[in-house]
Amino acid sequence: MLESFEPWLIAPIASLISILVGLYFYRYVEKQDSGNEKMREISDAIRLGARAFIKREYTVLFMFVGVVSVLLLIFLPTPIWTGDPLSNITLMLAYIFGSVFSALAGFLGLTIATKANAKVANGAQQGLNKAFPIGFRGGAVMGFAVVGIGLLGISIVYALTGDPQIVLGFSFGASALALFAKAGGGIYTKTADISADLVGKVELDLPEDDPRNPAVIADNVGDNVGDVAGMGADLFDSYVASIVAVMILGAALSLNFGAQYIEIPLVFAAMGVFASIIGSFTVRVSKNGSPGSALNNGTYVTCLIFGVLTAITTYYMGYDWRIWGAAAIGLVAGVIIGVTTDYFTSEEKGPAQKTAEASQSGPAINIITGFSYGLRSIILPLIGIGIAAAVSYLLLEPLGGVTFGVFGISMAAIGMLSIVGLTVSNDAYGPIVDNAKGVAEQSGLSEEVIAITDKLDAAGNTAKAITKGFAIGAAGLTVISLLAAFQELALQAGHPAIFDIMDPLVLMGTLIGVAIPAVFSAMLMLGVGKNAERMIAEIRRQFKEIPGLREGKPGVKPDYASCVDIATVGAIRELMPASVFIIVATLVVGFVGGIQALGGFLAGAILSSLLLALLMSNAGGLWDNAKKLIETGVYGGKGSEAHKAAVVGDTVGDPFKDTAGPSLNTMITVMSLVASLFAALIVNYNLVGWLQSIGIL
Amino acid sequence: MLESFEPWLIAPIASLISILVGLYFYRYVEKQDSGNEKMREISDAIRLGARAFIKREYTVLFMFVGVVSVLLLIFLPTPIWTGDPLSNITLMLAYIFGSVFSALAGFLGLTIATKANAKVANGAQQGLNKAFPIGFRGGAVMGFAVVGIGLLGISIVYALTGDPQIVLGFSFGASALALFAKAGGGIYTKTADISADLVGKVELDLPEDDPRNPAVIADNVGDNVGDVAGMGADLFDSYVASIVAVMILGAALSLNFGAQYIEIPLVFAAMGVFASIIGSFTVRVSKNGSPGSALNNGTYVTCLIFGVLTAITTYYMGYDWRIWGAAAIGLVAGVIIGVTTDYFTSEEKGPAQKTAEASQSGPAINIITGFSYGLRSIILPLIGIGIAAAVSYLLLEPLGGVTFGVFGISMAAIGMLSIVGLTVSNDAYGPIVDNAKGVAEQSGLSEEVIAITDKLDAAGNTAKAITKGFAIGAAGLTVISLLAAFQELALQAGHPAIFDIMDPLVLMGTLIGVAIPAVFSAMLMLGVGKNAERMIAEIRRQFKEIPGLREGKPGVKPDYASCVDIATVGAIRELMPASVFIIVATLVVGFVGGIQALGGFLAGAILSSLLLALLMSNAGGLWDNAKKLIETGVYGGKGSEAHKAAVVGDTVGDPFKDTAGPSLNTMITVMSLVASLFAALIVNYNLVGWLQSIGIL
Repeated sequence: MLESFEPWLIAPIASLISILVGLYFYRYVEKQDSGNEKMREISDAIRLGARAFIKREYTVLFMFVGVVSVLLLIFLPTPIWTGDPLSNITLMLAYIFGSVFSALAGFLGLTIATKANAKVANGAQQGLNKAFPIGFRGGAVMGFAVVGIGLLGISIVYALTGDPQIVLGFSFGASALALFAKAGGGIYTKTADISADLVGKVELDLPEDDPRNPAVIADNVGDNVGDVAGMGADLFDSYVASIVAVMILGAALSLNFGAQYIEIPLVFAAMGVFASIIGSFTVRVSKNGSPGSALNNGTYVTCLIFGVLTAITTYYMGYDWRIWGAAAIGLVAGVIIGVTTDYFTSEEKGPAQKTAEASQSGPAINIITGFSYGLRSIILPLIGIGIAAAVSYLLLEPLGGVTFGVFGISMAAIGMLSIVGLTVSNDAYGPIVDNAKGVAEQSGLSEEVIAITDKLDAAGNTAKAITKGFAIGAAGLTVISLLAAFQELALQAGHPAIFDIMDPLVLMGTLIGVAIPAVFSAMLMLGVGKNAERMIAEIRRQFKEIPGLREGKPGVKPDYASCVDIATVGAIRELMPASVFIIVATLVVGFVGGIQALGGFLAGAILSSLLLALLMSNAGGLWDNAKKLIETGVYGGKGSEAHKAAVVGDTVGDPFKDTAGPSLNTMITVMSLVASLFAALIVNYNLVGWLQSIGIL
Repeated sequence: MLESFEPWLIAPIASLISILVGLYFYRYVEKQDSGNEKMREISDAIRLGARAFIKREYTVLFMFVGVVSVLLLIFLPTPIWTGDPLSNITLMLAYIFGSVFSALAGFLGLTIATKANAKVANGAQQGLNKAFPIGFRGGAVMGFAVVGIGLLGISIVYALTGDPQIVLGFSFGASALALFAKAGGGIYTKTADISADLVGKVELDLPEDDPRNPAVIADNVGDNVGDVAGMGADLFDSYVASIVAVMILGAALSLNFGAQYIEIPLVFAAMGVFASIIGSFTVRVSKNGSPGSALNNGTYVTCLIFGVLTAITTYYMGYDWRIWGAAAIGLVAGVIIGVTTDYFTSEEKGPAQKTAEASQSGPAINIITGFSYGLRSIILPLIGIGIAAAVSYLLLEPLGGVTFGVFGISMAAIGMLSIVGLTVSNDAYGPIVDNAKGVAEQSGLSEEVIAITDKLDAAGNTAKAITKGFAIGAAGLTVISLLAAFQELALQAGHPAIFDIMDPLVLMGTLIGVAIPAVFSAMLMLGVGKNAERMIAEIRRQFKEIPGLREGKPGVKPDYASCVDIATVGAIRELMPASVFIIVATLVVGFVGGIQALGGFLAGAILSSLLLALLMSNAGGLWDNAKKLIETGVYGGKGSEAHKAAVVGDTVGDPFKDTAGPSLNTMITVMSLVASLFAALIVNYNLVGWLQSIGIL
């Protein structure tokens, strides 16, 4: 369908450049020295553990993808016996393609992250300014793989088919993978973390990352599969979904207002890639500089560059400035949400300090206080998302009505996600330097070196608060635009739907939808609990049955692999029912209640997933930092009653912030995409509609 | 306006009979013997403490009512300088009347409840079948006072003005009082409970209800002000609000379809009162019978009688059977929600048992497990409310459109709340027998007597699960009908509003609304924490400064009054900002965003308050029962590590289930009523509307 150079082709060009930059950083990290043999050994164990997890997860995943592919082939976009088999095959291929591409990005990022840890630890022996770029560029491989591969995939599918609805299939593939990577990785990482802590620290009083602990490698692996692979897949998913949503709305606009409304989101996304690339080269730190500021400055610089690049493009291409305005609003809202997230979790601010203080009255008061601040933390981000959505809508509505309005919301999402290349880089930096600290400790490097890795690690936590704000804000706007896309697809299938909350079917759907994120979170967290029980039993068994292990006799080693294995198998086993639950619930509500009920259902699920995601992420971060604050020596420091209470809070917060909270983004994207894919089918076949047609309702 | 006997006059008649029955039960309890001097002394201390709380609370409350009265006088229904001053005065008087009537019901109930405790303990010396009716009838005073005084107040205001909008003022008065009684009482009771436990049980290893503990009277007072006065005011509020909502919708219908649509809700409410009265006389227990079954059977019998009475009325009055159907659906949904609530909290069911089991792995796992089951517990009630709302809507819609549909939802709420007389009786029974147990223990009655009071107490907990299900379900349907009433009032003021979730203002309002219940809960829970700190300091001071107290030297008594005083003053101080916050937030959203934003705001707040109320109530109940289960001897029983972990869960659950969770019902009612009262004003004066009118938006 392509005959001449079209402006949107800047998107595949940007994506290829992004992949090249990623490969350049890959080479850069590869070339660094991994240190002595002990360090290599630990790093290898982590990498092999991560590979083992990924391999097993991907095996299950590909069976899942296989089953879903067959279902897609038979039923979508229309049942294969009623429509055009070719479009079913195309959609299925797009779906497979989406999951393979997302898997590829995750695999690349994970491989380099698990190599980079020892290299960062080794670099730290030569100083902060030597170690920092290894960590950052290790993370940036993931960052640029995510945006490059994501945008390339969208471009290929769109170039071949010219149909945004087929791109929806690609997005669904990416989401299915993200669900496994994020939620499965989240269960894995917290199983390992809680088990290692409960037996190692609490029962046996071993220090963190002690090599005698059989769960220590599983714990280190966990940081990588949860935070690197999981988070990468999550943002790959959000990034692709936000572009798909805006393309579907843009396609609707393009019928009456010209092709530029499909083109603009792709062009803006390309500018975001360029901004991230330039921004990533500005991230540097001097010998005694602050790595935290370096990461945050990189974010701010990238935002500015994005604003300038898109303004230039808008000017030269003659796009309406209101569109630029919507993207800018999204970006600004992202920064504001990030800063408020930082306030509620930072060690230096009131909430964490008061939670630390409350720990003196015991674990229950610590929990109540942290939970309460978590509840309080949700209002500012929700006001931010709400105002960004309303203003970007009202800004674009005058261009031609309601569809322009929702197009405005989705452009705000594009704005927020434009700098995702850098966001993912900053985020993936965290587990790399965290692992570097672990490698330094386990291989007995000097105190000064460990202090440097500590400083690097602390910077990762600060950067994470801001990027997490972006991720949640962007997910909020993205799912709102996915809901608009669903509405648009239902309209195209012949069912104009208004999601009026006082409509009985919408109301019923909304009330049920509110419950889904809660049940999904509960399933994941109970999964962590069950999985941890199995793993705790294994750790205890090893300490009992391996002579000399407890005492640290030279040459005696625990069986790291069995712990990795238990966490892996258990995570997948616990994840499956939760994944099936949300997909089946979406389909049941749709095929029973019809489009109105399903629209309400999605709206309810969006609202409660935002509430729960913010609550759990922020409360979890807060408890973590309250504990760290006490460990600096206040309220009795390590080992005091206050510290014990704070450890309880931190342990509760672990599955909150690393399993359930961040999985909700992916969950709601999957639900929205399932709804959109089935929209046409549901318009034609649903129980309530049938009952109405035969006069019973 | 009344010229002849109209059918709705059955409502004031029923309400007077209800008050007479309440007085009969009052006399019955009064006549019972309060036991020996020691018992009287303890009972007097509790009553005086409760009075002290109520007196101080009412003093602050009347200042609050005074301020609000002046604001109402100036601004509502229309600014006094623009409209008819008489209607402003009438509305203000209705408001004051509502708060006084609610206060009266609470005061009566509280007085008899604090007298009944010693009488129940004394009755227990003669056997279960002697003690049980004293407890039940003591609670029934509150039950019949609530419905009698509530329905009488509505009838008087309606008879005098004939205007459901003025009845709205009465309802708002009741709500303002409920907010103080429920949330203030909730802060009070948990301050006392947590402080008494943390110092008494944890630090000094005293048994529960030990008379040496300076907080023991405050703790016993707390059960009464929280569960009796607070819960009574809460259900008074829901009951009145549900009737007002249906009257406003009925008034709109009556314009075209006849006066019966105002009359029917009042007639049905009257039948509910008769059913409750008959039901209450069937609640009996034999010498070795089960008080739990007696209470639950009373509920089921009352439901049946209500169904029969309303069916007979429907037949003779010629009402449409669909209306009866909507009320019946509400009642059935209430029972189903109650039964599922019971499943998630009962000691004998999976969730509590698994949480108890998880306690063996320490407090963090106990918290995660209980919290997860709390999250899981919300889906069935929400499906119940959702289906009840949709079916009652669809059932009535064919009678004449959308307004009939929402009238159907509000009739379902009337159905659920019809048996509130009995519900409150069962609920108020709980703290009476709980206190009776305390009196028995503190006055050194025999083991057998204490065992009987234990059995009575356990029955209270079982009955509570079912009645709590009713309360939450009814609140859900009531606030949905209040939202419909708000929409209707906006329409009458000239602004037809559709709360379409994709409308930018509705969307923004919804996102912000979702956050309000979270912030409100956090303010209350942090209030408990701050207040508990003050009280813990006081308890520690007394043990330090009063010689012989710790050792229990004869004649040495702690200063109970100072603990009561600290809890009282602190509760009111912590409550004020939360109350002002929700009212101001509602007004700001309304006057800035207009009717659409405010409608979305209410919808968002309703959804998240249902989520949080169910989560917190059920998780709290679950932790409580998991602890009780361990205390029966499993997993090491009292004093084991598992027990300590379960105590942490129980302490976290205390403000969840007794402060924040149950206050959310009242919060959302207050917000809805504020929105409805200001609807006409907001239609005419709001920022977004003004910006649109001058062409900026």
